Amino acid sequence: MIRIAKMSDTKIALSEAGLPSFTAMPVLGRGKGHGDLEKAADVDPEHHELISEMPRLKSKRMITLVVTDEKKDLAVETLIKANQTGKSGDGKIFVIDTVGSIRVRTGESGDETLD
Amino acid sequence: MIRIAKMSDTKIALSEAGLPSFTAMPVLGRGKGHGDLEKAADVDPEHHELISEMPRLKSKRMITLVVTDEKKDLAVETLIKANQTGKSGDGKIFVIDTVGSIRVRTGESGDETLD
Amino acid sequence: MIRIAKMSDTKIALSEAGLPSFTAMPVLGRGKGHGDLEKAADVDPEHHELISEMPRLKSKRMITLVVTDEKKDLAVETLIKANQTGKSGDGKIFVIDTVGSIRVRTGESGDETLD
Repeated sequence: MIRIAKMSDTKIALSEAGLPSFTAMPVLGRGKGHGDLEKAADVDPEHHELISEMPRLKSKRMITLVVTDEKKDLAVETLIKANQTGKSGDGKIFVIDTVGSIRVRTGESGDETLD
Repeated sequence: MIRIAKMSDTKIALSEAGLPSFTAMPVLGRGKGHGDLEKAADVDPEHHELISEMPRLKSKRMITLVVTDEKKDLAVETLIKANQTGKSGDGKIFVIDTVGSIRVRTGESGDETLD
Repeated sequence: MIRIAKMSDTKIALSEAGLPSFTAMPVLGRGKGHGDLEKAADVDPEHHELISEMPRLKSKRMITLVVTDEKKDLAVETLIKANQTGKSGDGKIFVIDTVGSIRVRTGESGDETLD
């Protein structure tokens, strides 16, 4: 979960780290500190309806990245480096295990689909 | 996966339960019973294009909540209590294991990032 | 992660396979081959803002499907069959373990909530 304003830096950083494949989606989020989220500059006008529904939520981007075990630390470090400003709202990274990956075009499965 | 109309109640219930952090995203969903979904009152006008693509899908919100093992049951009970109307379309809760959590601002990892 | 143009085929194929329940969400994605994504026909005008943010990302749909272990292979095969064109951009399927499922309407849990 990252700032919208950091999408471009994140995209470039992931490419440079050899991790070009990812998915981004618009989300609204709230962390522990949510006192002045309304003042946040990175509110997404496209999601005004969602925002009015939930006044103290912030428009963010959720990035999903599937990598091999060997590249997990690299992925985490790259995301931190591209997104760390030191201010509240920098986001969170959650790691979950994937038990399978299939490339639809070829039907092949396994780590080679993560290239 | 919950009703759009239940977002506000859900947000308040999670805060009151001491679980303020979560992410919400707009989704279209279909459960087992999908006979009269088109008549549903909670269709999201913002996603008209998505809806016309898939006429029998319903606009919902997907809430993602990452909590410690100790708070898992509390999170599930809170979500049920805030969202149960007894009618078809109340939604589903899926539980998956998270193997890591990192706070981008500080780089710290572990359960303390879930506070 | 599939092409927007394949949503309708996917919806029908899943229903016919006895897997009617799923969730769809708009995402932007990038795979390994991303040279000419800008030319792609399936760019989603609704997400113009997201696209301008990340010029080489493609508008896709992310389908989330929760099934019992016995139906996992059927789900993967159905998704491949409905989405395989043989061209770059057909998408990926990722499999993760779910450790719990709860139906909000009744509070019941377990495999019967996945019917």
